[in-house]
Amino acid sequence: MDNLIESINSPEDLKKLRPEQLPQLCDELRKYITECCSRNPGHLGASLGTIELTVALHYVYNAPKDKIIWDVGHQAYAHKILTGRRSAFLKNRCYNGLSGFPKMSESSYDAFGTGHSSTSISAALGYAMAASMRNSDEKVVAVIGDGSLTAGLAYEGLNNAGGTNADMLIILNDNKMSIEPNVGGLHNSLLKITTSAHYNKLKMKTWKALGSGAIRDAVQRLVKAGKRLVVKNSTLFQPLGIRYFGPVEGHDVMQLVNTLKRLKNLRGPRLLHILTVKGKGYAPAEKDQATWHAPGLFDAETGHRLTDDDPVIPSKTRFQDVFGHTLLELARSNPAIVGITPAMPSGCSLNIMMKEMPNRCFDVGIAEQHAVTFSAGLAAAGYLPYCNIYSSFMQRAYDSVIHDVAIQNLKVVFCLDRGGLVGEDGVTHHGAFDLAYFNCIPDIYVAAPMDEVELRNLLYSAQDKRYKTISIRYPRGTGTGIKDWRRPFTYMEPGKARLLNEGKDMVLLSLGSAGIMGAAAVAKAAGKGISVQHYDMRFLKPVDEQVLEYVSRNFRNVITLEDGCLIGGLYSTVSMYIASHSDTVGKVTGLGIPDRFVQQGKTKQLYHECGYDTESIAKAIETLAGKF
Amino acid sequence: MDNLIESINSPEDLKKLRPEQLPQLCDELRKYITECCSRNPGHLGASLGTIELTVALHYVYNAPKDKIIWDVGHQAYAHKILTGRRSAFLKNRCYNGLSGFPKMSESSYDAFGTGHSSTSISAALGYAMAASMRNSDEKVVAVIGDGSLTAGLAYEGLNNAGGTNADMLIILNDNKMSIEPNVGGLHNSLLKITTSAHYNKLKMKTWKALGSGAIRDAVQRLVKAGKRLVVKNSTLFQPLGIRYFGPVEGHDVMQLVNTLKRLKNLRGPRLLHILTVKGKGYAPAEKDQATWHAPGLFDAETGHRLTDDDPVIPSKTRFQDVFGHTLLELARSNPAIVGITPAMPSGCSLNIMMKEMPNRCFDVGIAEQHAVTFSAGLAAAGYLPYCNIYSSFMQRAYDSVIHDVAIQNLKVVFCLDRGGLVGEDGVTHHGAFDLAYFNCIPDIYVAAPMDEVELRNLLYSAQDKRYKTISIRYPRGTGTGIKDWRRPFTYMEPGKARLLNEGKDMVLLSLGSAGIMGAAAVAKAAGKGISVQHYDMRFLKPVDEQVLEYVSRNFRNVITLEDGCLIGGLYSTVSMYIASHSDTVGKVTGLGIPDRFVQQGKTKQLYHECGYDTESIAKAIETLAGKF
Repeated sequence: MDNLIESINSPEDLKKLRPEQLPQLCDELRKYITECCSRNPGHLGASLGTIELTVALHYVYNAPKDKIIWDVGHQAYAHKILTGRRSAFLKNRCYNGLSGFPKMSESSYDAFGTGHSSTSISAALGYAMAASMRNSDEKVVAVIGDGSLTAGLAYEGLNNAGGTNADMLIILNDNKMSIEPNVGGLHNSLLKITTSAHYNKLKMKTWKALGSGAIRDAVQRLVKAGKRLVVKNSTLFQPLGIRYFGPVEGHDVMQLVNTLKRLKNLRGPRLLHILTVKGKGYAPAEKDQATWHAPGLFDAETGHRLTDDDPVIPSKTRFQDVFGHTLLELARSNPAIVGITPAMPSGCSLNIMMKEMPNRCFDVGIAEQHAVTFSAGLAAAGYLPYCNIYSSFMQRAYDSVIHDVAIQNLKVVFCLDRGGLVGEDGVTHHGAFDLAYFNCIPDIYVAAPMDEVELRNLLYSAQDKRYKTISIRYPRGTGTGIKDWRRPFTYMEPGKARLLNEGKDMVLLSLGSAGIMGAAAVAKAAGKGISVQHYDMRFLKPVDEQVLEYVSRNFRNVITLEDGCLIGGLYSTVSMYIASHSDTVGKVTGLGIPDRFVQQGKTKQLYHECGYDTESIAKAIETLAGKF
Repeated sequence: MDNLIESINSPEDLKKLRPEQLPQLCDELRKYITECCSRNPGHLGASLGTIELTVALHYVYNAPKDKIIWDVGHQAYAHKILTGRRSAFLKNRCYNGLSGFPKMSESSYDAFGTGHSSTSISAALGYAMAASMRNSDEKVVAVIGDGSLTAGLAYEGLNNAGGTNADMLIILNDNKMSIEPNVGGLHNSLLKITTSAHYNKLKMKTWKALGSGAIRDAVQRLVKAGKRLVVKNSTLFQPLGIRYFGPVEGHDVMQLVNTLKRLKNLRGPRLLHILTVKGKGYAPAEKDQATWHAPGLFDAETGHRLTDDDPVIPSKTRFQDVFGHTLLELARSNPAIVGITPAMPSGCSLNIMMKEMPNRCFDVGIAEQHAVTFSAGLAAAGYLPYCNIYSSFMQRAYDSVIHDVAIQNLKVVFCLDRGGLVGEDGVTHHGAFDLAYFNCIPDIYVAAPMDEVELRNLLYSAQDKRYKTISIRYPRGTGTGIKDWRRPFTYMEPGKARLLNEGKDMVLLSLGSAGIMGAAAVAKAAGKGISVQHYDMRFLKPVDEQVLEYVSRNFRNVITLEDGCLIGGLYSTVSMYIASHSDTVGKVTGLGIPDRFVQQGKTKQLYHECGYDTESIAKAIETLAGKF
């Protein structure tokens, strides 16, 4: 048996294969992806589920002329490998390597970049309307998962596509999962379709009909069968003006090729519903789909996960688990507390509270806007919602925060996990902007704990009447590794910084966990005879004006440090204060994320690139002290 | 005939009426609202369409214990009047008067405040889950228009409600309009339901059945009929897990009362589809629904609109019309230009280009996220989208701007109408934050024209290759009144400020149209012997660093001026520059929107309150000069 995968450096090569060779290619792709991911961690489960679809798409369509647009994009590994990036894939998600998601600047086959969910239909409609305006015959395909369909943006795209004659095919990749099992009414009705006896009978009839006779006849029958299915099952799509076909088995590559060939030549907005299995073909990944969504390092042979890939995990508690355990503790004694997450119960560790108090926790699916407005409703009704949303996903709910929470002075505790640079997930996932975009909203506090104990105490203190709505943001992964972080709670006064080190040569104001690197740099500088006063600011808003006043009177050099964009965050707040009040400060130096998009890599590499790892901070201190 | 309206100071009073008195009350409400709006402009059309619904809701439900949650909220005038605010309504939308929208701080009957669309279902679900958790028997009703249903947030709410047993009634107020006629696949399918002969037959049968027999029987029949209707018509709602009832006539108040009484005692998430007419009962408003959405002053007797209520309109061109006419001009010579608006073609004047080039303009409905991601798709396909979104609505699309446009370096020209304080629409509609929330995004330019000519030239210049994606923001209403603004285009170099006045005592850096007030203040100050150097910065990003450097070397006092929040905008950018570079500047004074939410009123009143009307700016100048 030939090795097919190595002969394929573009979709053109793929098209040289005979249809009956495609299953073998799928096997090879599956093995290659599994092996690569075992040694270089990635999003394994989703990509294993879309191998047949990817092969069929590139076999039938002519990318890059035809546009194939992925959603979220972590299922696009086979796509990367088939489009000339087989070797490059060895450096998937690495610093200066491939992005873990489709990326326009990486390949002309990546028609639209992504990372967040639910964008593919709207983007594809843009391409389709463009093709229509210029009378071009290129085809447009949007792939979207059933999980991504729970987000409003996907619906807006469907509704708009359905109102046009846009010539586009939407492929609903239904694996019944987001990262976690899906939720909501739509999920239930999709499930009903795919499990009904009626569907199974019809499916057989449909596909038998397709197997013989002229293509035209078959398509017409398919359409009829599709329509019949629709009426019986009342899917979401017809009322939105989208023709519905399916569901069909998503791991039969030859059937997919036949189906796509036939659907390709229809006109107007249409949707093909395919059924896939997350982790398909790799037993451990099929069995525990949530864990194997992104399993980390593992032994491909045995399926044994090497959770020690990050050697700090066993000895340190992740910030998300400090959140999860602490919230449960608080909820036990405060019956008003409820927990909300948009599709990330294990990602943010709300699942810890969920296990004990399922009725007081809400996984709302990939629906950040709803998560916030629903929290506002709960708050209006007297509850105290702890609404946990990753920093970069909170961008989706910005208006809900302003319009439904802040303006109404409703109290919601926003817990922003993945604040700051997140590492390998890269540019779409960095929590770079939350400090800035929350800073400008009135009547919201903005805090960032430096360590596990501060996170714990902030979560505790936020219950207090003296606290307004607050955003508590903390990074991905682990912190300093404080072992006894489960200490009795201590109330933290809003707007109060804490002094970490006394010094006289200059002052360092740090916000959040970047302060750990700051403290290390201060210690380094001390070794060189430079004495730095270091405050952990804790709160961006209200900012500790007493500290700022003291600083502006007593120091000529101020360094600010934050794991967030420099524009709009702590650097900006301190500069505004100094520029309005100072008589003596000479210079404010801002360390943080510069005004450009930062790509993927290990966080250490990225902190260094951005100039705020320990070494860079120490260098900045020495430079200011005139000793570098 | 008694005057009923004056006897009603709360829903308790309303409940004392006999059912057959309700039509008279509706007539009186209609007259009162029309007369009030004729003298004190407001959102007439929507409120005339919901009078019967409002009376029926307060007749059947027990607010404030039961929660009635409006969407958008400009249809809630009858609700305000029936809940103790009849006299206060004379000061609707006035400074220190009533908000034009429901507002929690204004009345306990306003269960959830609003202003933007599509929030009611999510908020109501919060109330419903809260009631369920505490075993309370309060009822929850969300009202939502068919226009609001096109937004993703509404869908997220529906999908989540449909996945629960939440005891809530959603009322779909279907008037076939947003501010403009609706768009999209959903609109088409709703229209099909309400116009099909099949529906009309079934409707009669259903309502006849309801008219007799025990309530219980009737409800059961209603449910059955509802289900039947659903299957036949394939609405959006069943696949999402929501029971569907209707459609029913929305202007027969007694039928609505009967229907609501029956639906009130069902359980689970359910939707009643009612058909209403925007502007109902006032002939001019029924006839031209878009114009009479918010008609301004008019003669209630004759229906003659007094477009002169703002005496500047005839002599000045609104910024939105400068946008509209200029875009058409540019599109005539640049075939790559396309126009996108989420449901505001006449509000933003894209309708000017639409008339001539309907195929190059896209009204995507109330769907800001889609508007931006769709624009990104068009840009990826080689078009140059001018995507016009009101500043406060752009908050909805924040992630789409970052994730789909900026990260991919796609070029979209964002035109942000209604930037800055908007006046009577108040707190939910002020464009307070856009300068700040765009400022922190890399690879985007942020500009604000001071006058009509600058807007025109920015729209022209943005086509140039030297321009990245840009946000061009301008205010509601008119500017300086430059008559010959249709001058030949002049290219504006990105990041270049212009000097408006030379002076030596201090410097004023203004951004956007607030500079008009700034220039007037500078002239005033000159009269008192204070000489102010005044720059129109034009660009917040890239900011003119040459000017900042010159300023920091040559002036001890700097005033920044912007019609936007102080945190994160020009004041912040200038402070960061000064704090990092300055050796001589003593003080930066920021004039702009302070860090609190500003309510409704005339813009002049609000500028004054916020301290940046001409008088306040002049005062600030004099204070700094030591002459006040």
